[in-house]
Amino acid sequence: MTQNIYDNAEFFAGYSRLKRSVEGLDGAPEWPALRALLPDLHGRAVLDLGCGFGWFCHWARQNGASRVLGIDVSEKMLARGRAATEDAAITYTRADMEHLALPPRSFDLAYSSLALHYIADLDRLLAEVQRSLVPGGSLVFSVEHPIYTAPTAPKWSLDGAGRKIWPVDGYLDEGPRSTDWLAKGVIKQHRTIANYLNMLLRLGFAISHVEEWGPSEAQIAARPDLADERQRPPFLLVAARR
Amino acid sequence: MTQNIYDNAEFFAGYSRLKRSVEGLDGAPEWPALRALLPDLHGRAVLDLGCGFGWFCHWARQNGASRVLGIDVSEKMLARGRAATEDAAITYTRADMEHLALPPRSFDLAYSSLALHYIADLDRLLAEVQRSLVPGGSLVFSVEHPIYTAPTAPKWSLDGAGRKIWPVDGYLDEGPRSTDWLAKGVIKQHRTIANYLNMLLRLGFAISHVEEWGPSEAQIAARPDLADERQRPPFLLVAARR
Repeated sequence: MTQNIYDNAEFFAGYSRLKRSVEGLDGAPEWPALRALLPDLHGRAVLDLGCGFGWFCHWARQNGASRVLGIDVSEKMLARGRAATEDAAITYTRADMEHLALPPRSFDLAYSSLALHYIADLDRLLAEVQRSLVPGGSLVFSVEHPIYTAPTAPKWSLDGAGRKIWPVDGYLDEGPRSTDWLAKGVIKQHRTIANYLNMLLRLGFAISHVEEWGPSEAQIAARPDLADERQRPPFLLVAARR
Repeated sequence: MTQNIYDNAEFFAGYSRLKRSVEGLDGAPEWPALRALLPDLHGRAVLDLGCGFGWFCHWARQNGASRVLGIDVSEKMLARGRAATEDAAITYTRADMEHLALPPRSFDLAYSSLALHYIADLDRLLAEVQRSLVPGGSLVFSVEHPIYTAPTAPKWSLDGAGRKIWPVDGYLDEGPRSTDWLAKGVIKQHRTIANYLNMLLRLGFAISHVEEWGPSEAQIAARPDLADERQRPPFLLVAARR
């Protein structure tokens, strides 16, 4: 199964302190860009793959969704999500996305924020997601950008002229990458942008929009620590339709 | 107009000595991948944007195209193309692609190899190409990969551990890049992958395939000098349909 790093005590404690965990969707700088890719949710059924604390599940309900299914592998995150709501139209279910089974033609939107790069057999999962969408349904997701996940040593360094650079190697060699982020040995799957897109195309999705996210000038003015993210995008956002 | 670097004597002499100039399509390692994206050309009208010496125009005719229009800004390259053929179904026309005007609904395939990254107003050109295609027509092109074009200093370097790395910066800051390649001050336009794809989507193209090209194991066995290209892809290949 997928490495369940979120139930690691050290990781969970660190993750819980992140701005996006404390402040929810508005604490994630890429949220406005991801939100802009979403269809109207009024009366729609929504699936959230890797729902974590359930911030998006709540937001979807507040924005008109008729029902929301949140899936996550982390019992700790789901427990907090469940404790935060009495909304019977939100269901939190623990499942390993490597082996997820979904009811066919059941959702108008499948959404996933920064979760799919943990999945080894993404072809299988996306095929399952495709079947679970109604015809014309939407898939909107973010993952860590392949430029971000590729390097053997994914950290900023200085070149001979003192410029901050992101040292890319191994871009075309897909597969697991072990990084130390909040805890040691977190396993993520590196894939090229082309692979993400061609997987969707092979499954019959039409690509609607692709975004290599970086902070806007206004975001950098408010949070100068984000400036480096323009040198190489941290996130890839994709919208597609069944 | 576009910088016409190909008619610069130093550049032209250097370019003429490249493997892909001497050997034609088979001298370009990405050609098999680009060829795989092409539709059947039998009886089809083909447009080649940046046709250079006309290698692809010839190939298209040999593979059944009924007529081929090759466009290039370089008089020197077109002259060599014209001298190499007496095929009346191939037309070579000199034009600046920044201001190109094409007849509407006239081509079944628009093809371009490593030329569109010279174009500043690509939105305008692609809109013109879209109008020039018949409904259902194909657009297949290659450009230098954005990871390749982004850096301030686009050359391999060694990190602290002695690994060869490609120093990415400026990825999200699109616009001209001046590099010294065959001649000094060659101007190319850096764009993100997302920008290339979203331009096509806004124009109503459906994306069919995206490839971040790197050499295969067999190609590296035959040409070990290609091995580094797997660390970061040199070319982006895109197929789309009107």
